[in-house]
Amino acid sequence: MHGIVFNRLTLIPIMLDRLSNISLLAFDLDGVLTNGKLLVMPDGDWVRQMDIKDGFALQLAVKSGLEVAIITGSQSAPVKERMEKLGVHHFLDNVSDKGEVLESFRMSHGLERRQMLFMGDDIPDLLAFAVAGFKACPSDACWEIRQQADYISPLNGGEGCVRDVIEKTLKIQGKWNFINQVRSI
Amino acid sequence: MHGIVFNRLTLIPIMLDRLSNISLLAFDLDGVLTNGKLLVMPDGDWVRQMDIKDGFALQLAVKSGLEVAIITGSQSAPVKERMEKLGVHHFLDNVSDKGEVLESFRMSHGLERRQMLFMGDDIPDLLAFAVAGFKACPSDACWEIRQQADYISPLNGGEGCVRDVIEKTLKIQGKWNFINQVRSI
Amino acid sequence: MHGIVFNRLTLIPIMLDRLSNISLLAFDLDGVLTNGKLLVMPDGDWVRQMDIKDGFALQLAVKSGLEVAIITGSQSAPVKERMEKLGVHHFLDNVSDKGEVLESFRMSHGLERRQMLFMGDDIPDLLAFAVAGFKACPSDACWEIRQQADYISPLNGGEGCVRDVIEKTLKIQGKWNFINQVRSI
Amino acid sequence: MHGIVFNRLTLIPIMLDRLSNISLLAFDLDGVLTNGKLLVMPDGDWVRQMDIKDGFALQLAVKSGLEVAIITGSQSAPVKERMEKLGVHHFLDNVSDKGEVLESFRMSHGLERRQMLFMGDDIPDLLAFAVAGFKACPSDACWEIRQQADYISPLNGGEGCVRDVIEKTLKIQGKWNFINQVRSI
Repeated sequence: MHGIVFNRLTLIPIMLDRLSNISLLAFDLDGVLTNGKLLVMPDGDWVRQMDIKDGFALQLAVKSGLEVAIITGSQSAPVKERMEKLGVHHFLDNVSDKGEVLESFRMSHGLERRQMLFMGDDIPDLLAFAVAGFKACPSDACWEIRQQADYISPLNGGEGCVRDVIEKTLKIQGKWNFINQVRSI
Repeated sequence: MHGIVFNRLTLIPIMLDRLSNISLLAFDLDGVLTNGKLLVMPDGDWVRQMDIKDGFALQLAVKSGLEVAIITGSQSAPVKERMEKLGVHHFLDNVSDKGEVLESFRMSHGLERRQMLFMGDDIPDLLAFAVAGFKACPSDACWEIRQQADYISPLNGGEGCVRDVIEKTLKIQGKWNFINQVRSI
Repeated sequence: MHGIVFNRLTLIPIMLDRLSNISLLAFDLDGVLTNGKLLVMPDGDWVRQMDIKDGFALQLAVKSGLEVAIITGSQSAPVKERMEKLGVHHFLDNVSDKGEVLESFRMSHGLERRQMLFMGDDIPDLLAFAVAGFKACPSDACWEIRQQADYISPLNGGEGCVRDVIEKTLKIQGKWNFINQVRSI
Repeated sequence: MHGIVFNRLTLIPIMLDRLSNISLLAFDLDGVLTNGKLLVMPDGDWVRQMDIKDGFALQLAVKSGLEVAIITGSQSAPVKERMEKLGVHHFLDNVSDKGEVLESFRMSHGLERRQMLFMGDDIPDLLAFAVAGFKACPSDACWEIRQQADYISPLNGGEGCVRDVIEKTLKIQGKWNFINQVRSI
């Protein structure tokens, strides 16, 4: 008599199962790898804050053989440098259309959409959401992003949301182990 | 037998309707576009923290044809520079009487009071409140400001309160669309 | 049959009445005028964060004729400079015994103990508590300080606790008015 | 008829009794002595935030005759310098295997495991947990660490968790007194 009812919470385990397909983890910078704040320095530089536990997970993802990419409309040489120290070599900055960039990454790496996770927090990330097979966002993402996300992390941008999706992905793929000695830097 | 009772919450939708008239969005700096904190640097500079989602909304407001102004008692060359990168060219700093400055802006731009929104958080903003047709404040504004505000954002200064009022204004005016590609910087 | 029971909350209004006697407002620096955090800079400098609403209140207290002093075990030239810009000229730093320093201030200014408020947050402030007539602390002060405080602000260090006690003092003395144009800097 | 049931909360007082044995307090840096955040500076430096109340406790622990050590996978000359100003001279950085380092400290100082407390927050700290007799962590430590901890502080990394375990240790050993004048710096 009654059909089966799926509400958002019921669907979360089903959504997370799809993480077993992921081979590319792509992240927006501001509001995802950072808390979305900028320190406006005297000489005009903008300083960002990043999370060490996110950094540990990024290193482990790379060592586990996943592709990791940052896709951002901004530019920051010192953030790029930190990402390289963590082993993340795809740092795509100054991007106008994140969907276009993600699609061209997909083509050049021979990936299917269902293999690509993208985590974003604001309107410009909707274009990447249209391409990524798995859409994730931090708890404090804007309304439009949260509406479309397959998974909303309980954690805010810059507060461990990146660690959260990487950890869930590696665990479901049986790669959350610590044989590779990864230091927290 | 009973008159109609309007409490503050009942009145919020009515207040927000008035955002359809707005053509100037004016903001205090410290405690509104920032969290009201200063990093006191070794050489005596004071460093502020700003929010990227606020920045996205400021850009969109300008591209949508609204006037946007910052009115502050302080001075900060790098904040002014960031505002200019976002397209905000009215940066009125070192202001003693914000009411006077807002009134003279009104005269020179041929605006009516009901077309002007001002968002402030502390005592010096009361002078601007006396001129602006729509008075807004962050959640952590001081008591006197909260008493007079037409709208108290649920968000704190520097934590998205600026995005909140811009988004509400653009939505009610049918301008919250993303045809203009605005990057989050 | 039953005696009158005063619990801590009952006593708060009585305590606050005593603010009418205050002519010196003295504050610890770290954890009171700041959030008790230090940014450890590459060249070894320690950078503190201060609150603009606190700054507004400090200016108004000075313009209202109260003595304002900072008493700290630390040293910071840029914090001293900011205090001077706000009109606070008693900046007593590098202090080992805050009680001794407060007592000697009392003697040289001909004050009675009941005219002196001290706000502190940690063990070294207990020595000043032994001298001050009115003992205040932020919400996140250590246990020993909270035990002895006449008034525990609902706000944390660096988050407006200084504004809170200054505002309460000036209001009870009828000096919380804005005839003197004080800018928020 | 019924056996005695120990749940986690029941066990806390028993765990804390074991602090009476401690003569070495060892701490991870990032996420324990800091909030686990890095400010990514324009020139590539990473700036950390530390807590003054933690600093007070570190000084008092050293003056009370306990050994205090920092063991970290990272490197930071200015943090090392701050630690030295607080009297902490064992600053073991750039460490790959924290267990090995802690064990070799144990041997060279002739300590038993039950005399060593280690506080950590993330996966690399599990190696030190395998050696330390008493395992502590901040409230926001990762899941694997919280599972193994003898004591989870109610406070987060960089927010007083270090003060919390030092204060508990010194109190149980009767050393939480303030005869030695320790300034808060």
